[in-house]
This record gives sequence, C-alpha cells and structure tokens, in this order.
Amino acid sequence: MAKKVAVLAVNPVNGLGLFQYLEPFFESGIAFKVFAVAETMRIKSNSGVFLQADDVIANLKGKEGDFDALVFACGDAMPKFSENAAKPEYQDLLAILKAFGDKGKIIAGHCVGGLLFDITGIASGRRLALHPFVKNAVKSTMGTDEAFVVDGNIYTAQTEKTQNLLIPELLKVLK
Amino acid sequence: MAKKVAVLAVNPVNGLGLFQYLEPFFESGIAFKVFAVAETMRIKSNSGVFLQADDVIANLKGKEGDFDALVFACGDAMPKFSENAAKPEYQDLLAILKAFGDKGKIIAGHCVGGLLFDITGIASGRRLALHPFVKNAVKSTMGTDEAFVVDGNIYTAQTEKTQNLLIPELLKVLK
Repeated sequence: MAKKVAVLAVNPVNGLGLFQYLEPFFESGIAFKVFAVAETMRIKSNSGVFLQADDVIANLKGKEGDFDALVFACGDAMPKFSENAAKPEYQDLLAILKAFGDKGKIIAGHCVGGLLFDITGIASGRRLALHPFVKNAVKSTMGTDEAFVVDGNIYTAQTEKTQNLLIPELLKVLK
Repeated sequence: MAKKVAVLAVNPVNGLGLFQYLEPFFESGIAFKVFAVAETMRIKSNSGVFLQADDVIANLKGKEGDFDALVFACGDAMPKFSENAAKPEYQDLLAILKAFGDKGKIIAGHCVGGLLFDITGIASGRRLALHPFVKNAVKSTMGTDEAFVVDGNIYTAQTEKTQNLLIPELLKVLK
C-alpha cells in the first residue's frame, strides 16, 4: 500500500524542487500533505508565485505518526536560516525532522536539506548529497559530490537540478 | 537585454512543468508574467496545490506587444481540451498563440503544447516534440519522437520529463 508523506515547504520555496516531488507522488497515487514552514499556509516560490499549502508546520507537531515519510523542499528561505533559526517555524522544522528521524522513517531532501539532516543528528554516519556550498559544513554525516545518494532511510539530491535522478528511487520505496 | 515572457498556465497545470520554466527564468533574470488559462487567477496544479497567477488570459489580448516570447505550460486540463474548446479562456488561448506566432515571436511548450501550435498554424512546416499520444494528430507540422526540438522560433519538449533538456536552449535565446 502506498505510503503517506509529509512535505515541508520553506518560504520562499523552489517551485521546481517542490513539484518535482508532488507531481510524481500524485501520478503514483502516493498521498501527501504540504506543510508550510511558515506562520501562514500562503507561501511563495523563489520565482514569486503564491502557493497554498495544506497546513502550517506547527500543526504537524505530535502528528508525525500519521505519516510514513517526510520530504524537505528547499528554497531561497534557507540562505537566511542561521539568522531565522530561533523563529517558531524553524524550531518546529528541526523538532519534526528529529521526530521523523528518531522513528527511522523515510526522509528525503535536496540542496540544503542534507545540512538540516546533519544538524538534527538524524542521518548520523550516513552519506549525503547536498549543495556544494554546505558540503563541508556537515559534521555527523558524510558530505559527497554525488548527484544523489540513498543511504538507509535517507534520500538526498545535490540540488533541484539533480533531483530527477533521486525521484525514481524515492518512488520505489513510497509506492 | 533579457526578454519578457508571457507564461500561460492551464487549470489544472502540471506544477513540475510550470516551475521548470519559472525558476530558471527567475534565476536568469528573465522577466515573466503568469497568465491563468481560466476565468480566475487562482488555479491549481495537477497535484492539487492552489497557485496564484499574475493575471487571467483574457487580459493578455491586445497586449502581445508587451512580450517577446510565449510559453505554454501544459497540464491535466488538456485531455479535456476538445470538450472545453468553446470556452472563452480556450478561445483566448488559441487567439493569443496565433497573435504571438504571426509576429514570429519565440514560442515554447511541452506535452500537448505542440498540438496547439499545430492547430493554430503558427508552426507550419516545423518539426515538433510532443506527447506520443498526440504525435499523429498534427497536420501542419511534423511530429517527432524526440525529447526536445528547436525549429526556428518554436521550442518544444515531449513531456515535462524531458523539458529539462529544452530549458538550456530556451534560456540562451531569452537571456
């Protein structure tokens, strides 16, 4: 039976990255719910298009058990992550990543996603694909130059430009 | 100087296809405006996410001169095109395609886009990449099995899965 996925979308989110997960999920009959990593469900793409998420990340707390997998959709919100990390939505993001990781659920992400998986300790000892800018910032994981990496329950792509190589692997395990 | 692009998004639109145009345009400094092929600016992706276009297609009529290029973002609206063709938004779509084509402007599209370029006569004698289901339906053009085709001012990709191969060619001429 197809699994149910919580998709986390930062604000702004890279629309290409986001829909590279959503459209194949839809076409494969994989259920998902999009959570805005924001105070409101209305977020925008890097390219400036307003998108309506299904809910806000605050409402995912305590409901991790409703989902089999978590996907992190990166975007232009992330270069400012360090200065915004104290905001409730980012604290929720880190707590939720940790909750999914601690339960050994499937976790996928691209670009800076790998750095968050590293910070939260949920991919400890795993190999990751992640943006070259943050490759050397990881500590508990092993950053690589690969286009995509599957290591245990952790699925990562270097950027949205290589995400198309990761998606078939992700679909195999979510279908 | 970068060109300005009118992006037409059907309702529902394939979000992966749409943002495969928009994010690279944004990253390359190419100006664009998204027009919903619908009565309202609020449309949704195939995958069910609501998106806010910048305007509706009716308001593009007579303003073709404001844009250097037109992009057609296909979606799940299109399998029902023939039964909806009489609706104002689809009549506007065909008229606007023809207006851009008659002026020799750059025109790009994927999936069923090529069939619309064929119907409107704006790609007469040109080779096209388009969805295999409609390849044999074209009359004024030459349908191919290629992943993408650039022929004169007409840029086409077979589906959103091969669109990534077309985009670099499109960026070259729009930058």
